[in-house]
Amino acid sequence: MAKDFTSRKENYSQWYNEIVAKADLAEHSAVRGCMVIKPYGYAIWEKMQAQLDKMFKETGHVNAYFPLFVPKSLFEAEEKNAEGFAKECAVVTHYRLKTDPNDKTKLIVDPEAKLEEELIVRPTSEAVIWNTYKGWIQSYRDLPILVNQWANVVRWEMRTRLFLRTAEFLWQEGHTAHATKEEAIEESKTMLDVYAEFAEQYMAMPVMKGVKTESERFAGAEETYCIEALMQDGKALQAGTSHFLGQNFAKAFEVKFANKEGKLDYVWATSWGVSTRLIGGLIMTHSDDNGLVLPPNLAPIQVAIVPIYKGEEQLAIISETALKIKKNLESKGISVKFDDRDTHKPGWKFAEYEFKGVPVRVAIGPRDLENGTVEVARRDTLEKEVLQIQDIEVKIENLLTNIQNNLLQKSIDFREENSHHVDTYEEFKKVLEEKSGFIYAHWDGTAETEEKIKQETKATIRCIPLNQKQSEGYCVYSGKPSKGRVIFAKAY
Amino acid sequence: MAKDFTSRKENYSQWYNEIVAKADLAEHSAVRGCMVIKPYGYAIWEKMQAQLDKMFKETGHVNAYFPLFVPKSLFEAEEKNAEGFAKECAVVTHYRLKTDPNDKTKLIVDPEAKLEEELIVRPTSEAVIWNTYKGWIQSYRDLPILVNQWANVVRWEMRTRLFLRTAEFLWQEGHTAHATKEEAIEESKTMLDVYAEFAEQYMAMPVMKGVKTESERFAGAEETYCIEALMQDGKALQAGTSHFLGQNFAKAFEVKFANKEGKLDYVWATSWGVSTRLIGGLIMTHSDDNGLVLPPNLAPIQVAIVPIYKGEEQLAIISETALKIKKNLESKGISVKFDDRDTHKPGWKFAEYEFKGVPVRVAIGPRDLENGTVEVARRDTLEKEVLQIQDIEVKIENLLTNIQNNLLQKSIDFREENSHHVDTYEEFKKVLEEKSGFIYAHWDGTAETEEKIKQETKATIRCIPLNQKQSEGYCVYSGKPSKGRVIFAKAY
Repeated sequence: MAKDFTSRKENYSQWYNEIVAKADLAEHSAVRGCMVIKPYGYAIWEKMQAQLDKMFKETGHVNAYFPLFVPKSLFEAEEKNAEGFAKECAVVTHYRLKTDPNDKTKLIVDPEAKLEEELIVRPTSEAVIWNTYKGWIQSYRDLPILVNQWANVVRWEMRTRLFLRTAEFLWQEGHTAHATKEEAIEESKTMLDVYAEFAEQYMAMPVMKGVKTESERFAGAEETYCIEALMQDGKALQAGTSHFLGQNFAKAFEVKFANKEGKLDYVWATSWGVSTRLIGGLIMTHSDDNGLVLPPNLAPIQVAIVPIYKGEEQLAIISETALKIKKNLESKGISVKFDDRDTHKPGWKFAEYEFKGVPVRVAIGPRDLENGTVEVARRDTLEKEVLQIQDIEVKIENLLTNIQNNLLQKSIDFREENSHHVDTYEEFKKVLEEKSGFIYAHWDGTAETEEKIKQETKATIRCIPLNQKQSEGYCVYSGKPSKGRVIFAKAY
Repeated sequence: MAKDFTSRKENYSQWYNEIVAKADLAEHSAVRGCMVIKPYGYAIWEKMQAQLDKMFKETGHVNAYFPLFVPKSLFEAEEKNAEGFAKECAVVTHYRLKTDPNDKTKLIVDPEAKLEEELIVRPTSEAVIWNTYKGWIQSYRDLPILVNQWANVVRWEMRTRLFLRTAEFLWQEGHTAHATKEEAIEESKTMLDVYAEFAEQYMAMPVMKGVKTESERFAGAEETYCIEALMQDGKALQAGTSHFLGQNFAKAFEVKFANKEGKLDYVWATSWGVSTRLIGGLIMTHSDDNGLVLPPNLAPIQVAIVPIYKGEEQLAIISETALKIKKNLESKGISVKFDDRDTHKPGWKFAEYEFKGVPVRVAIGPRDLENGTVEVARRDTLEKEVLQIQDIEVKIENLLTNIQNNLLQKSIDFREENSHHVDTYEEFKKVLEEKSGFIYAHWDGTAETEEKIKQETKATIRCIPLNQKQSEGYCVYSGKPSKGRVIFAKAY
């Protein structure tokens, strides 16, 4: 399978597309820019959802569901937000089709079924949610509201990449309401921490936590916190954002509450989201020239067991052992596939599981049974070992932990190797051309400089890192004073 | 809370609306016909989803995700399906907004951003999915495809009711592809059985399994299997459908496969779905004049513990016992809320949990602690008992099972009492006027008679029941021969 597969060095972008296609993760649909998420890709999303949902609930959040459509008048209420998304809105204008009078087999939009007010397919739900919260909030007793929604959203993108940038994508969007500014800021930081923990502990993808510059901020936010990951090709991926929205939406939708003293004030807001884009990040963090590599914590199949046999009788004997191992592993919460299909040879199956990134593959043949052993292969390093069958479940369990840790460590190492502190613009450009990666450089804090660097190098400020020791210096571009380094990179 | 609450007898429809509103299940949104599913209502949907998803996976299905939009040319490919849904389609015609030149604070649809081909917001996904399956299926080895999708769909309804009939709703839609007709029919029946089991074992809502008449069939299906439940007001609710689609979609999208002999044939299809409508059915099956009643198997909170105390010190002592009970119940997989809010009195909390249908409420006061007892109230019968605290967890666990069974039995009894065998059209109309319910009557099998009865009485044929002893007779309307009784009812 891997033979006709492009290597990362040859063409990273094509390598990515081939992984997505050949590992059965997703494909383009008949609708421009919209993807079909195939069962194997969707199973990864389900694993992500389950874990994130657990973490959201542990931090006090509940789920709800708000309409897909936003009436135009609500959409435009928060001006900056509206302006930010106006150019990529799918708009519903009619609510009925009718038979084409010129061709009875065709349908046309019924001109008599024009909506009085156009409906925007949500690109994000602040408007429709804050218009709803207006009815939910009267007093401080109604606060905080800590709600999350799992939903599809649509942003009409012209250049799309599966998972990374699609017109429709799946995501979760948290929308919270608070009595004080401090509490809202605290919430946005808490959720950033949840995202970072998820990225590192489950995706094995290290992230930098930071704040966006004004020009990269979410439309309508006072502050956008983000996690930024470094992909194998040296480009950054914005993996999640958490916004402190101030009172912008409360003011746009007139959402006030009576505080303990009975005085009315506008409510403080946050919103935060991660999307199916994370699957793109997962691929570009771990996968290699042999195909997909999945961290055990998010792999739909953690262990694949392949019997090597001739004839029904041998299969029956091997199956007995295999099913016992499967059962014991499953009782530890490990997901196992015993692949006894007779339509494919073992070698074909090995290649399949390797390409699909299954963390551990176990092979059992007749000689293994004689010797009381099995062959265990790990996907991350491609190493194989023959192991005694005794306590095999514990050994596999440990191996999975080991693989998870190894993938995280490898990614941390990669990021460290590809993080560069530069002090001159020449150096800056040289690093970008030769190695790319995260570039830590001083910046004078102006949108003008940021824009010029972007124009000249295509690098943007990914974030102003949080929790980092900062020292004063001089902007690599303008030479003006700077209070600390920010992270530049080319980005997805 | 229940004081200003309409009784079922006064006005069933208003009673329903008030339950939905006052139990915080859902509300209307700013978008005509679209609902906001509030956290408590959504938590019920999450419980339903989790159980159904488990049952789908146990029967070999996997999840995937297909686009929200269907290009018009795909939508119209299967003619009957297109015709059936054309009148209720939301249509996207543009992909951009721009600033209104006459009023800079407003946005207008950008006339230059008109789509070449209109996009239909999916009312159901057969078209987009079968267009995708075309690329997935070449040979019998690619079959069966057993895929399910959890999604939102839009059907532009003019008269909407929360949960029961909304322009946007949440559902799951299974879409399967098979090599033979027999296997596809088998699949549609299997999924009908899954739905019936879910309705009875989890919703405690008994259902009749049956087949729809041709006029009530899903647009594009060869056969529509359904489960029909009887609501408290004597009206029927179609709770789920499973369609045998024949080769209609395979032909419309040219999906052929090579069978074992290498001959090409069209693929056989099924689709099946249940939606947030089930929450409406749940409400109208069990709830009473004191508010919502939830079966334990789907209640977001199964047990609420309310401390009765004066002062912090008493609360601390009671909390210790309460939290111990909570922990022990949770270790049995029971969801418990310990409500120690100091903003509300115990009486207010009792009323709240009663209205929200929490199956079991436990009250603990200082005298209870002295006596080693707690007060346990069950929501279904409103009975209270003082129980020894010893083994209280086992007692509560048994009580939950008991409530679940009682609710199912009550609903079965209600349905039996409201099922009527009638042999004349006079009797038929009399029953409809006086008692309503399920009417078992002979029908001559013609769409003409069906339509006339509908016009004259508003009753429709809910289904031709499966697995029922049938005897010949004469149509109540036409007097023509009939091979068995069908179920008539007024319906939601």
